[in-house]
Amino acid sequence: MSEPILNDISHRRFNLLRGSWVLVSPHRNKRPWQGLQESPSKTTLPEYDPECYLCPSNIRAQGQQNPKFDRTFVFVNDFSAVKEDQTEYHPERKEGSLATRLLQAESVTGKCYVITFSPSHHVTLADMTPAQILPIIETWTNMYMLHLNPKSPLASLAPNVPPLAQTDLTKPNAQYRYMQIFENKGTTMGCSNPHPHGQVWTTTSLPEEPSLELAQLKKYKREQNGSHLLVDYAALESKEKERTVFENRSFWAGVPYWAVWPFEIMIVSKQHKRALVDFDEKEREELAEAFSDITTRYDNLFETQFPYSMGIHQAPLDGTEEEIEASHFHIHFYPPLLRSASVRKYQVGYEMLAEPQRDITPEQAAERLRGCGGELYRKKL
Amino acid sequence: MSEPILNDISHRRFNLLRGSWVLVSPHRNKRPWQGLQESPSKTTLPEYDPECYLCPSNIRAQGQQNPKFDRTFVFVNDFSAVKEDQTEYHPERKEGSLATRLLQAESVTGKCYVITFSPSHHVTLADMTPAQILPIIETWTNMYMLHLNPKSPLASLAPNVPPLAQTDLTKPNAQYRYMQIFENKGTTMGCSNPHPHGQVWTTTSLPEEPSLELAQLKKYKREQNGSHLLVDYAALESKEKERTVFENRSFWAGVPYWAVWPFEIMIVSKQHKRALVDFDEKEREELAEAFSDITTRYDNLFETQFPYSMGIHQAPLDGTEEEIEASHFHIHFYPPLLRSASVRKYQVGYEMLAEPQRDITPEQAAERLRGCGGELYRKKL
Ligand SMILES: O=P(O)(O)O[C@H]1O[C@H](CO)[C@@H](O)[C@H](O)[C@H]1O
Ligand SMILES: O=P(O)(O)O[C@H]1O[C@H](CO)[C@@H](O)[C@H](O)[C@H]1O
Repeated sequence: MSEPILNDISHRRFNLLRGSWVLVSPHRNKRPWQGLQESPSKTTLPEYDPECYLCPSNIRAQGQQNPKFDRTFVFVNDFSAVKEDQTEYHPERKEGSLATRLLQAESVTGKCYVITFSPSHHVTLADMTPAQILPIIETWTNMYMLHLNPKSPLASLAPNVPPLAQTDLTKPNAQYRYMQIFENKGTTMGCSNPHPHGQVWTTTSLPEEPSLELAQLKKYKREQNGSHLLVDYAALESKEKERTVFENRSFWAGVPYWAVWPFEIMIVSKQHKRALVDFDEKEREELAEAFSDITTRYDNLFETQFPYSMGIHQAPLDGTEEEIEASHFHIHFYPPLLRSASVRKYQVGYEMLAEPQRDITPEQAAERLRGCGGELYRKKL
Repeated sequence: MSEPILNDISHRRFNLLRGSWVLVSPHRNKRPWQGLQESPSKTTLPEYDPECYLCPSNIRAQGQQNPKFDRTFVFVNDFSAVKEDQTEYHPERKEGSLATRLLQAESVTGKCYVITFSPSHHVTLADMTPAQILPIIETWTNMYMLHLNPKSPLASLAPNVPPLAQTDLTKPNAQYRYMQIFENKGTTMGCSNPHPHGQVWTTTSLPEEPSLELAQLKKYKREQNGSHLLVDYAALESKEKERTVFENRSFWAGVPYWAVWPFEIMIVSKQHKRALVDFDEKEREELAEAFSDITTRYDNLFETQFPYSMGIHQAPLDGTEEEIEASHFHIHFYPPLLRSASVRKYQVGYEMLAEPQRDITPEQAAERLRGCGGELYRKKL
């Protein structure tokens, strides 16, 4: 390690991408654990579950029938967190009143989608080959294209992906500001259906996290004569190696210097890429390879179905030229497990009230993850 | 409700205290839940557990023996997240290098304490009377005083609390910047010992959350000719009533307009108080009453031992005059449960990657909580 002292002393690290701090307590890793034990799901799932609302040909909660899809399938979330149409909101508070100053709200509309990753009920990304993951990346790219502001510099790109198969998606009536692509994997991460799937929420608002990042990305670019924070960061990490877990020609993947979760990983495009539509076929294949590698290592680490929340940050669908040019494509994996399949890290009291905290250092975590690549520990489905 | 439309449409609310947004999706509350069920602990606990490292006279993990205390007992955490003494850290990176710019760390020292709330292993704050809760508030006040910078305008105050009983605490050698008092209650909140206790972490750094709040408090005070955000807020809420859960002469308690967790509560001092040391005996009694009321309602809501993380925000131990004068004493309760003792809210994928999200509105939550005051649903211990 280039600064071995950081494996010994308590310290804070600055998350330059988000503009916030994390407390690191390496010596605390020895603490015995007497709290709650997670119970990893031991049941083996069938390839097809007649009760599952994501399996092909099944009927969903509100009566619609899924097609007999063979790769991915996208539909509007039956319980969307935001709606396309709703009553307009005009705050009723009096101008200049205390209420106007203190109680600030704004309407949000948008569209939420579910995307199944495979027709098989029982596979996960770790069970899939890069070639099987590729259609998911193509589907995300298509969805992003469909929602882009036609005036965006990104709208003229033709990333040459096969059109969305088996979906009744249509271009939304409104122009949304941001698209959040994500996956919750495992019951620990609030996932209620094991059929491999992700979600896509598009909103008229730019949410908190991408907004914090965008402010930092713009600042760095301005201060460093047009350099990109994450391009510089991936180059540095690829050279330093101690936090690297996987890399190929186009992507660096590793435990960020400022990681909060014990085995947090970020996949970063090495070249400056603003969004999914900036990738060509070869790059999408390399991204699929990164997904396959990371999810396999995760499952291998504690020989379990490793839970996580994962999501893509990229350019807003609708934004200023400065915002779009400063954006840089990357993926965050936030997994809760700490020491085994049953002992997780809690971001609770101190963390919620004061500051995120971790025990094991990012360098130690990366070393563990480097050590568990290769074949999936269980038989691939 | 003064703006009933907010019970129908998806919208964002601005957290003026933190400077961040939360997404509110009232219609989504109807979503069926098929995910993980929490298993609330059903076991009845003994009054004394010989295996417990917090019960009087027992031996702790590293060999020390607890005294036979009769109210609270404070000791240094055997697995502190920060240490008092450690090797000094001088970054080894080269000036102006990429590493210096991107990999920023700083040393943190401090002291972490555990404070037991009662000698009885099986009681919780909800089981205790305000008179039994009072010694806890006195203990916190004493600890705060012990760590205050002698040059702080707060250091000359004499809040007239009985001295710390049964503790071997001594004034630390170093001057720390901030003291975070908190409690994790319940296994869901990472608590590994049911014996009623809280923690106190003091650090050389001002952590993220109080730092975000302080920036907002200072800004408001500057922009509003010296008015205090939380004084104005408590006055407004006390008048509007729809988010109020409990109040007495000195404190307002309710679900904040910008609450993230379904049944989140904030206790706010109505008068401008910077820290625990600003309260007189009567005010401490009223604070104890607020604690007793809120924790009882929480347990009554789903007739369970309601899990939460709770913590106090107040003036830094060491800070500028502007920081100390802008600080305002308040308490946050962050409870995870949503619909029953076994169904919680997950702040996962979208929430981690994009923005915190809630279903039930703060006004609906406050109404539910107003409806479950009075006696504790189970026999008090
Ligand atoms: O200190 P404890 O109770 O062992 O640990 C608990 O509270 C700490 C402070 O919020 C957290 O860092 C831990 O993840 C949690 O399990
Ligand atoms: O939409 P789902 O999978 O039913 O729900 C899950 O993911 C959502 C988005 O992160 C969260 O708001 C929910 O709390 C979680 O249970």
